[in-house]
Amino acid sequence: MSNYPKFGAGLWHFASYVDRYATDGYAPPVTTLEQIARAGRVDDLSVVDVPYPFTEGVTIDQVKAALVEHGLEAIGVTPEIYLRKFSKGAFTHPDPAVRAELLEFLNEAADVVRALGAQYLKVWPGQDGWDYPFQVDHRQQWRLAVDGMRELAQANSDIKIVIEYKPREPRGKMFWDSAAKTALGIKEMGVDNVGVLLDFGHALYGGESPSASAQLLIDQGLLWGMDVNDNLRGWDDDLVVGTVHPVEVFEFFYTLKVNGWEGVWQLDQFPFREDTVEAANLSIRFLKALHRALDELDVEALRAAQLRQDAMGAQRIVQDVLFSCMRGE
Amino acid sequence: MSNYPKFGAGLWHFASYVDRYATDGYAPPVTTLEQIARAGRVDDLSVVDVPYPFTEGVTIDQVKAALVEHGLEAIGVTPEIYLRKFSKGAFTHPDPAVRAELLEFLNEAADVVRALGAQYLKVWPGQDGWDYPFQVDHRQQWRLAVDGMRELAQANSDIKIVIEYKPREPRGKMFWDSAAKTALGIKEMGVDNVGVLLDFGHALYGGESPSASAQLLIDQGLLWGMDVNDNLRGWDDDLVVGTVHPVEVFEFFYTLKVNGWEGVWQLDQFPFREDTVEAANLSIRFLKALHRALDELDVEALRAAQLRQDAMGAQRIVQDVLFSCMRGE
Amino acid sequence: MSNYPKFGAGLWHFASYVDRYATDGYAPPVTTLEQIARAGRVDDLSVVDVPYPFTEGVTIDQVKAALVEHGLEAIGVTPEIYLRKFSKGAFTHPDPAVRAELLEFLNEAADVVRALGAQYLKVWPGQDGWDYPFQVDHRQQWRLAVDGMRELAQANSDIKIVIEYKPREPRGKMFWDSAAKTALGIKEMGVDNVGVLLDFGHALYGGESPSASAQLLIDQGLLWGMDVNDNLRGWDDDLVVGTVHPVEVFEFFYTLKVNGWEGVWQLDQFPFREDTVEAANLSIRFLKALHRALDELDVEALRAAQLRQDAMGAQRIVQDVLFSCMRGE
Amino acid sequence: MSNYPKFGAGLWHFASYVDRYATDGYAPPVTTLEQIARAGRVDDLSVVDVPYPFTEGVTIDQVKAALVEHGLEAIGVTPEIYLRKFSKGAFTHPDPAVRAELLEFLNEAADVVRALGAQYLKVWPGQDGWDYPFQVDHRQQWRLAVDGMRELAQANSDIKIVIEYKPREPRGKMFWDSAAKTALGIKEMGVDNVGVLLDFGHALYGGESPSASAQLLIDQGLLWGMDVNDNLRGWDDDLVVGTVHPVEVFEFFYTLKVNGWEGVWQLDQFPFREDTVEAANLSIRFLKALHRALDELDVEALRAAQLRQDAMGAQRIVQDVLFSCMRGE
Repeated sequence: MSNYPKFGAGLWHFASYVDRYATDGYAPPVTTLEQIARAGRVDDLSVVDVPYPFTEGVTIDQVKAALVEHGLEAIGVTPEIYLRKFSKGAFTHPDPAVRAELLEFLNEAADVVRALGAQYLKVWPGQDGWDYPFQVDHRQQWRLAVDGMRELAQANSDIKIVIEYKPREPRGKMFWDSAAKTALGIKEMGVDNVGVLLDFGHALYGGESPSASAQLLIDQGLLWGMDVNDNLRGWDDDLVVGTVHPVEVFEFFYTLKVNGWEGVWQLDQFPFREDTVEAANLSIRFLKALHRALDELDVEALRAAQLRQDAMGAQRIVQDVLFSCMRGE
Repeated sequence: MSNYPKFGAGLWHFASYVDRYATDGYAPPVTTLEQIARAGRVDDLSVVDVPYPFTEGVTIDQVKAALVEHGLEAIGVTPEIYLRKFSKGAFTHPDPAVRAELLEFLNEAADVVRALGAQYLKVWPGQDGWDYPFQVDHRQQWRLAVDGMRELAQANSDIKIVIEYKPREPRGKMFWDSAAKTALGIKEMGVDNVGVLLDFGHALYGGESPSASAQLLIDQGLLWGMDVNDNLRGWDDDLVVGTVHPVEVFEFFYTLKVNGWEGVWQLDQFPFREDTVEAANLSIRFLKALHRALDELDVEALRAAQLRQDAMGAQRIVQDVLFSCMRGE
Repeated sequence: MSNYPKFGAGLWHFASYVDRYATDGYAPPVTTLEQIARAGRVDDLSVVDVPYPFTEGVTIDQVKAALVEHGLEAIGVTPEIYLRKFSKGAFTHPDPAVRAELLEFLNEAADVVRALGAQYLKVWPGQDGWDYPFQVDHRQQWRLAVDGMRELAQANSDIKIVIEYKPREPRGKMFWDSAAKTALGIKEMGVDNVGVLLDFGHALYGGESPSASAQLLIDQGLLWGMDVNDNLRGWDDDLVVGTVHPVEVFEFFYTLKVNGWEGVWQLDQFPFREDTVEAANLSIRFLKALHRALDELDVEALRAAQLRQDAMGAQRIVQDVLFSCMRGE
Repeated sequence: MSNYPKFGAGLWHFASYVDRYATDGYAPPVTTLEQIARAGRVDDLSVVDVPYPFTEGVTIDQVKAALVEHGLEAIGVTPEIYLRKFSKGAFTHPDPAVRAELLEFLNEAADVVRALGAQYLKVWPGQDGWDYPFQVDHRQQWRLAVDGMRELAQANSDIKIVIEYKPREPRGKMFWDSAAKTALGIKEMGVDNVGVLLDFGHALYGGESPSASAQLLIDQGLLWGMDVNDNLRGWDDDLVVGTVHPVEVFEFFYTLKVNGWEGVWQLDQFPFREDTVEAANLSIRFLKALHRALDELDVEALRAAQLRQDAMGAQRIVQDVLFSCMRGE
């Protein structure tokens, strides 16, 4: 039997969602505690990434207890720095008072990381960026984004911070939009506790090869976390992993494997209209199949094909195992 | 002075918005009546497209009175057939009971069209479509979408119905996704009270030339309404018109003019982070400038250039007036 | 053993290519006869689509003899109506003299269809369309495109003509750009010998679901031919089928099967940097695996899931067979 | 009168083109010397970027003489490292012998830079990258791309080298694909004679804000050259500047101005179906109008709006001058 990795998910996988049209929500609201309970019902799920603040009235002790009850651990904490207050930016908000509030709130979130014994504070500044040509001074945006993250890192040097980049949404264009720009910004910070969480779908719809971006970040010493999902390459659809692009997600995990990257295989999906537990189960079933395929992959032959840039030879080797990975499940 | 057309806007232009991240809303909620009051504060705005149902507790008599008070007329009514109940589809919902509820609700909305003396019922089935490969039987979708619309049309033969097509969002892929598919479906309906409302931004990010689509629909006798806005060609950003693609929106209005299309120039914009009245004013200021540019355009010379497919000559003629249209404002 | 369909390929699959950068060609030129010989070396290839004119000096008798020698039949003939003469359009060229030459040339190509006993004349007007805003009069384009095709059809009522639509390239925007627009135009022609050849990749990068487009065309009685390949959804990359989007190509063949569509499974690929025979072999190996997967697919269960729009259930059924289809090959 | 900058163009602007369909070329071949003569006929063109090798039989002395005769200077030299020999990569070609040939050829091109007194050697490795998932080892690609460029730079420390990045084409995905990745790679080279040439269109269709990328490169000390053109955001269409996205190209030049960037305003356009001299004239006419608009722009008011992220206010200021820039021409 394949020696599977730990599987994880953003806790929001088990929430309900609104968007600008279905303003009454795709399902009734789900509390943080019920989200944890749902996560606990997924086969093979070990860790969750916990949004903060929790839903109304839920305490950190309740969260800790619920995680224990359902056999889960917190891998990270995701502060919601994309609500109304930060709609014109979190780190790059034009108002210094809002930026001060942001740092205060993020320090509070860092305390939640400590309290939950999580591995990282995940910072996803989805409102940092711009919508219109001429809206912002791009030099100033860089300074605010980079300096603010450095300040946060220095104020919390005992914990790891991971930046999750994304091309756009909700902001028309996000500041941290690609693997390379994020690496460039982190280098300029001059700190050693900021890395990257690579979201497969973000890389894909940003026109990156997620596999190439993973390799770049590994080589820069910055790939500290990852999420998978799927989309139609034009938007962050957060579909169930493998339902559209199984080949590229397989290449992504292949890259992690040959680099000896050992971490949690984590889901970031928004099953708007689906049963959230069933969606997670389908995902993990697929990921386990990929893991078995990696066991069987003839890595030496594949490397040899790659050294020749022999695309046909490489695909043949890959197809042999990818399109057999559900047999004998 | 240029003989300006009537300007209009979807009433939602003056609302506040949520999305899947800023779940607390980009601004506090705005009632239907306050939306009308805001619309009334826009210079040169004459008509609005009214979403239905109104916000909680607002009656149709209040709406009528508010429209009169603010010097506005209702051009259309937009039933919200994209809320939770219809999240797996409105016309194409898998459950016949939901489809029956839909028709009942749409008939109710048709009564609002009558009560407000509006010109059309606008049907935008944003949840009709699919998200995943293999999720739906495409033949069945066509049947449900076309037959349901015919049934609605026949039940309300005294009013005009316009379908607004859009490539996607909120559904991963929308059924009514293009000008041509919508025209094809309407022809199959065999009714004479269904047409199309062309949204400039939907056409643009669907890879259409909005101008070519307008011409196609005019030639099919189906262009019964329109909306303008702007986007980055990858999503329905609903930005302020002219801020990104002024050339193509100018071509769009040129096409309407040479075809003698005389209707309202209408806005469908979502100013998430902007002052909604200011956004409308900026838009109409630009549209008026375009209208003056059309007055000055040398249409004969442009037509002659087009007959030769002389792109450089055509652009020179266009640039002469487009890039002078704010002078002497 | 699976009862495989006939497999085919555009003969250009075995040619060499230039593009605007590698103007000396990705490989030395290949004559029509050598292309046929290469096609003959592919395992399981039965039919080819033959570009016309042939390479310099090659006669139709030589082509016929070569096809026989290599055990191949011509399924169609593709006239090259996208060379310099037609760079501003074929059917929609601004010069009537060029349009007259076009029809003369197409009638000649129709004779080649007759001479080779092929099933159809494939018309792909890649230069019909526009590049710049304001470049063309869209009403006139429609008239020229539709009237010209009707005239061709009426002059050759004994043979079938298939239009292959494509969003763009080489023209910035192609006139026949989608399944629905092509169906709409054909209906207006009022002839019964014009149908559609659906290219999977064209539909995919045009934002269509190739499966939904196949269903639409089948229901309109117009799906008379098809091609498969793959791409990155942003361009007509003409990659080897299944290397990027195996799920959607499987859905496409599923749709053909449940509709009882029985025709050639054909390749339209441009292996710029690959061995062309090896690329075809890899493709057909994959297509045969898909065919076996269709044999094993639980169609009743899948239909039931689709009736509920149960995306997770449908994917589970599909993944069971798709990701097992290379076993026991 | 506005104090215009120098205007330039890639010499290929005046050539003829082939693509994979119009293999006989959109126009008859044009020699290097005739390209120079055409460039000389453009109003206000001062400098050209010269592809190397020249067309057959043309010597460097002839090129120098022709430049003098037509009142032009060479700003750069562009070695054609994307022909057949390099179709699987230039710096990243799998065969070490080809990589050795590449460096030899680039050193030869560097001699042409010296002979023509040009400002830079422009390196655009359009074939470095990959087409298929699993085709290459991404770590090895980075090493070959970065180490090869460093070696070239060290062997030619007396001249400047600029890398032109581009998302893709002709390779399915290009290695140097974005501003940030290029900056990251250059930093790792540890040399001081490698910078970036930013192509507006490449940034645009790569999903970047060209203005933001210009600012990033300026702040990294790496913006050493630039090209403008236009496209439909989905491909490198190399259309005439300003015909589709005048607002963003205006923002781009605004960014250069406020940073005190003083260099040539250069064209990289492919007028496939247009008169090449007329296309250049139309372009420069537009660029001069933009330059006048920058003279009139209220920079202080715009900066103040940007500090508030006041998109509407910024657009109003911009529209006032942009849409008046052709008046009094």
